[in-house]
Amino acid sequence: MIKLSKIPTRPPKDVDKKTLQEQTKKNCKEIAKLQAVMIAQSKYNLLVVFQGMDASGKDGAVKNVFKYCNPSGIKVKGFKKPTDEEFGHDFLWRIHKNAPQKGMIQIFVRSHYEDVLIQRVHKWISEEHAIKRINAINAFEELLEFDNNTIILKFYLHLSFEQQAIELQQRLDDPTKYWKHNPGDWEERKHWDEYMRCYEDVLERSSIPWKITPVDERWYRDYVVSTTIVEAMRKLDLQYPKLEI
Amino acid sequence: MIKLSKIPTRPPKDVDKKTLQEQTKKNCKEIAKLQAVMIAQSKYNLLVVFQGMDASGKDGAVKNVFKYCNPSGIKVKGFKKPTDEEFGHDFLWRIHKNAPQKGMIQIFVRSHYEDVLIQRVHKWISEEHAIKRINAINAFEELLEFDNNTIILKFYLHLSFEQQAIELQQRLDDPTKYWKHNPGDWEERKHWDEYMRCYEDVLERSSIPWKITPVDERWYRDYVVSTTIVEAMRKLDLQYPKLEI
Repeated sequence: MIKLSKIPTRPPKDVDKKTLQEQTKKNCKEIAKLQAVMIAQSKYNLLVVFQGMDASGKDGAVKNVFKYCNPSGIKVKGFKKPTDEEFGHDFLWRIHKNAPQKGMIQIFVRSHYEDVLIQRVHKWISEEHAIKRINAINAFEELLEFDNNTIILKFYLHLSFEQQAIELQQRLDDPTKYWKHNPGDWEERKHWDEYMRCYEDVLERSSIPWKITPVDERWYRDYVVSTTIVEAMRKLDLQYPKLEI
Repeated sequence: MIKLSKIPTRPPKDVDKKTLQEQTKKNCKEIAKLQAVMIAQSKYNLLVVFQGMDASGKDGAVKNVFKYCNPSGIKVKGFKKPTDEEFGHDFLWRIHKNAPQKGMIQIFVRSHYEDVLIQRVHKWISEEHAIKRINAINAFEELLEFDNNTIILKFYLHLSFEQQAIELQQRLDDPTKYWKHNPGDWEERKHWDEYMRCYEDVLERSSIPWKITPVDERWYRDYVVSTTIVEAMRKLDLQYPKLEI
């Protein structure tokens, strides 16, 4: 059983920040290099999912880790409250439309997992329905893998309750962060324990595993995310196509 | 074990054509009446799938059965050879995009099943891959049912080998049918037995059952299809929404 409260949200004590920051930079450059081959080969594709509580640093992870990449080969999709048309369909309808094409890196900032998190926390769906949805997610992700060579990398950005308060407060204090302030975030914060329970269940039941990423220090988040991605890409049989005449 | 060669492609001997044709007309009118409520209520939705060999009368079924319906509430999608963009995704990607919105009737002329029929017959995918795809289809169709109140009605239009020859020949003889002629159909006909094997496996493994519809006589096809649809719609709790002021 995963107990998130037992898992650190901070970097291990023995790591050297400077060293890891240098490594992060190398990782990000290598991701861009491998991405160039991925585009040319048009065989594999990546789906990178960022989930986490408000102010867990999802946008920052995208901004930092993929900064050397060719934007032609990257799409970022943030999922917010569904539109009327989206509500007229099953919860995976809008997700599937945004699944990556061969050669592409598709990033989800929030994702189909919201439909088994916020909706479950507020009891807009039953527990039974939530579990059916998690099973449907597993089948969907397996489909992308076996039928389209999609590599799915899912990051749970693991933030502490205390650090969330600090981050949310900064949005009220720092004029360059005002635009991120949303009074609703302080409301959602009241449901923290229930969110943790639902996250734990998702982490538990997912057939494709999650990377639980400590994010209280943002430089360590970038290190973990970039390392995970570069290692996954290295394992692919990435090569430029031969010349066909 | 389903053996298609043992299942009649012609109407039962004891039915009266005139009587059934009158019943078909009543069915089609009732479908339109129920559709009007379905649109207003915007709760349920229908996915009607027509599969069958070339010249099994898929287009004719659509034309006849839904002729009294409000076209605002019906969408017909024919699936042909995938585009480059569609080939860049898993086989259900283009299908899911066309899943019905609440209140709608969505008709598929050919469907996701092509990807476990023509592709399997020609060995473009392995047997193992075909079975993974059938399992993915089951998960996908269940998702539409439990998460969007979709009623899925699947018709296998069951044509005899002999009748196919007659129908294909008409496309060469009748100027109003020239446009339907495709020399490739006579090529595909050579794979008839292999198609039957793959259809049998699909009928066998589908968790949502198929209606095997004898189509050698087209008036009987329309009777079976319209009866199946109207009976399914009657079972729904269709009602006009109350006035909200």
